[in-house]
Amino acid sequence: MIVDIINKKRLGQELSYKELDTFFNGYLEGRVKDYQMSSLLMAICINGMTEEEVFSLTKIFIDSGDRLDLSFIDDVVVDKHSTGGVGDKTTLIIAPIVASLGIPILKMSGRGLGYTGGTIDKLESIPGYRIDLSDEEVMKQVQNIDIVITGQTASLAPMDKQIYALRDVTGTVSSVPLIAVSIMSKKIAGGADKILIDVKVGNGALLQTIEEAEELSQLMKKIGAIYQKEVQTMISDMNTPLGYCIGNSLEVMEAIRILKGEEMGNNLTKLCIDLSTELVCMAKGVLPSDAQDMVMESLRSGAAYQKFVELVKAQHGDLSKISVSRKTKIMKANTTGTIQEISAIKLGELSVSLGAGRTAKEDSIDYGVGIELLKQVGDKVKKGEGIAKIYYSKPVRLQNFNDIFLIK
Amino acid sequence: MIVDIINKKRLGQELSYKELDTFFNGYLEGRVKDYQMSSLLMAICINGMTEEEVFSLTKIFIDSGDRLDLSFIDDVVVDKHSTGGVGDKTTLIIAPIVASLGIPILKMSGRGLGYTGGTIDKLESIPGYRIDLSDEEVMKQVQNIDIVITGQTASLAPMDKQIYALRDVTGTVSSVPLIAVSIMSKKIAGGADKILIDVKVGNGALLQTIEEAEELSQLMKKIGAIYQKEVQTMISDMNTPLGYCIGNSLEVMEAIRILKGEEMGNNLTKLCIDLSTELVCMAKGVLPSDAQDMVMESLRSGAAYQKFVELVKAQHGDLSKISVSRKTKIMKANTTGTIQEISAIKLGELSVSLGAGRTAKEDSIDYGVGIELLKQVGDKVKKGEGIAKIYYSKPVRLQNFNDIFLIK
Repeated sequence: MIVDIINKKRLGQELSYKELDTFFNGYLEGRVKDYQMSSLLMAICINGMTEEEVFSLTKIFIDSGDRLDLSFIDDVVVDKHSTGGVGDKTTLIIAPIVASLGIPILKMSGRGLGYTGGTIDKLESIPGYRIDLSDEEVMKQVQNIDIVITGQTASLAPMDKQIYALRDVTGTVSSVPLIAVSIMSKKIAGGADKILIDVKVGNGALLQTIEEAEELSQLMKKIGAIYQKEVQTMISDMNTPLGYCIGNSLEVMEAIRILKGEEMGNNLTKLCIDLSTELVCMAKGVLPSDAQDMVMESLRSGAAYQKFVELVKAQHGDLSKISVSRKTKIMKANTTGTIQEISAIKLGELSVSLGAGRTAKEDSIDYGVGIELLKQVGDKVKKGEGIAKIYYSKPVRLQNFNDIFLIK
Repeated sequence: MIVDIINKKRLGQELSYKELDTFFNGYLEGRVKDYQMSSLLMAICINGMTEEEVFSLTKIFIDSGDRLDLSFIDDVVVDKHSTGGVGDKTTLIIAPIVASLGIPILKMSGRGLGYTGGTIDKLESIPGYRIDLSDEEVMKQVQNIDIVITGQTASLAPMDKQIYALRDVTGTVSSVPLIAVSIMSKKIAGGADKILIDVKVGNGALLQTIEEAEELSQLMKKIGAIYQKEVQTMISDMNTPLGYCIGNSLEVMEAIRILKGEEMGNNLTKLCIDLSTELVCMAKGVLPSDAQDMVMESLRSGAAYQKFVELVKAQHGDLSKISVSRKTKIMKANTTGTIQEISAIKLGELSVSLGAGRTAKEDSIDYGVGIELLKQVGDKVKKGEGIAKIYYSKPVRLQNFNDIFLIK
């Protein structure tokens, strides 16, 4: 009985493959209700899952849909995933870089979860950009131009899509086993041969501690091994936001500046270079120093940017029409000193309150709103000096967000 | 923000009055969804609540509706509650006893949940018995005949009714703080001056351990103190079913036999005498030995039974029309020996499978079915001897319930 399964997990007991299957497939078929699924998910968040349970649930997620067969592509196909964080637009930068080096990359992305934005939401801020490619279109495009960034196709791990949307609005996002199942079921169904995962840690990320990040990394590698997929992970900091922009259109525009080689110094660009280098190593088996040279050359030559333009065009987007809100407001320093910290989580909360993220499943997103940081950690500021530019459409009380910047 | 409140509780942090108020009243008003409420309820089940949180939530539940004002009654009005269990028909016996001694008792009861039966379901097995009295009818009747047993009126703690229904289907029933809030908000809104609570522990009850029962008792007393209500508790065993009968009509008929003084020896009668004695002490401030004498005299003289007849008549029931199923079957001992245990929970499951209880909110109840124990713990039986009589209407496989009796 459904309630017995929930009670078992509430008491911290292990669920069998059969119990998980009954519950999760029952949900897809409507026999298990939203309110029962969210109750079980919360029990999993707090009481955890055994590895056996994680392997079972991953299989159930994968088996809920199709698996792409990319064996017709001779090259090693790579995929990359980030566990997400405030201002994380790495996919928009890394995928064009590696594709410009002739490495096929097929990336299916998700929507935003809580205060962390989703790649798909960002791409949808480009008018016309299609995120609903069919399996056939995905395979054709990766063969033609080596790059696809689309939403999860409906046929791959459809279970994940539904569960993901429910977790987002029920406070059940921060769970190592659920994150592992969600990521790996999509990655395995997506068909790539080698997978790189950027695991973010910090106040602006799903995971708060290095220990959780290590646990997630190990779990994902073990799942990958079951399906004969090489999985590499890189743990990166998410206490400070990545780059200068938060908000959908704003982040796409920032990604473009980096792809054009215009912003080489900041933390976002450095992370993108590191991740791209690792992917090139995995796919080509070259030395890290050689891989990094290739990545830098792609940025310098404009090849990465050209690949991005090609991607957007292939998916029917019109970059000339991307826009941000015209209503802006400057957030000012409330004291004189040096910026010690910029809280990623509080910036994320501000961006959600502006309308750049969702608080309920049904919420729509305001693509043009967001925040552009005018200063970074380490910069000196005077009281009253502008530290961030807010793009808004509905009124927002900035004084509620005075503690984003720690100035001393 | 709604999700932030859930996240806070997931992480085991304390919620403020304002956060609880936002969340729970948001639920009543439809802004907080079922799937969000069940997620928070599960986090509460696992991570618990502080006393402050329990006091806040009780106030929120009470304030969601009206409070009965019984100050027009000069006598001390008492109320009694049982946390419920298999075969628990104590209310049907205790309320007439104390009312027959001139102590006004006003009891609003619930329906059955899972394998524990509800007093209201039992009373509805008496054709015509009204369980939907209005606040005015309740007050008039308690003044006229000192006794009312009715369903919760819609105006008292309506929040509890909705949360209760959701907990039932989401595995979030077994939580000491949630049980305390649910019981005490109804009792305080119900207006009685003094409240006696029978806390059941064992495999056939919501609570499994004495520690939980002690915790619940202390918590309810503290809540009572805030509202100047004297709360007494009595912890009683629910590993063995109470009395001989399980099933709605069967239990009413058993209660009548006890009220007539025909079954003075069994565990049910003893518990009813203890609880009634405590209520008389609370209401009249007499010595326990004197209180017990009064209770015994009420049973011996037929006064308790007469009060029950008066109650049923006042609420339009017709005792002459109560009936049980004519189809019966004898369950036989599968070995020779002494009965060591009778599992309350398994008897409860059998009674639900016969149709005496609900497995889903919408289920209707078959009042005439149930189980009559022919033997009790400690009795010697021979293989093949009858140990229980089953009243059924649809086919049931008794061999699935062979482990109800432990015979050695």
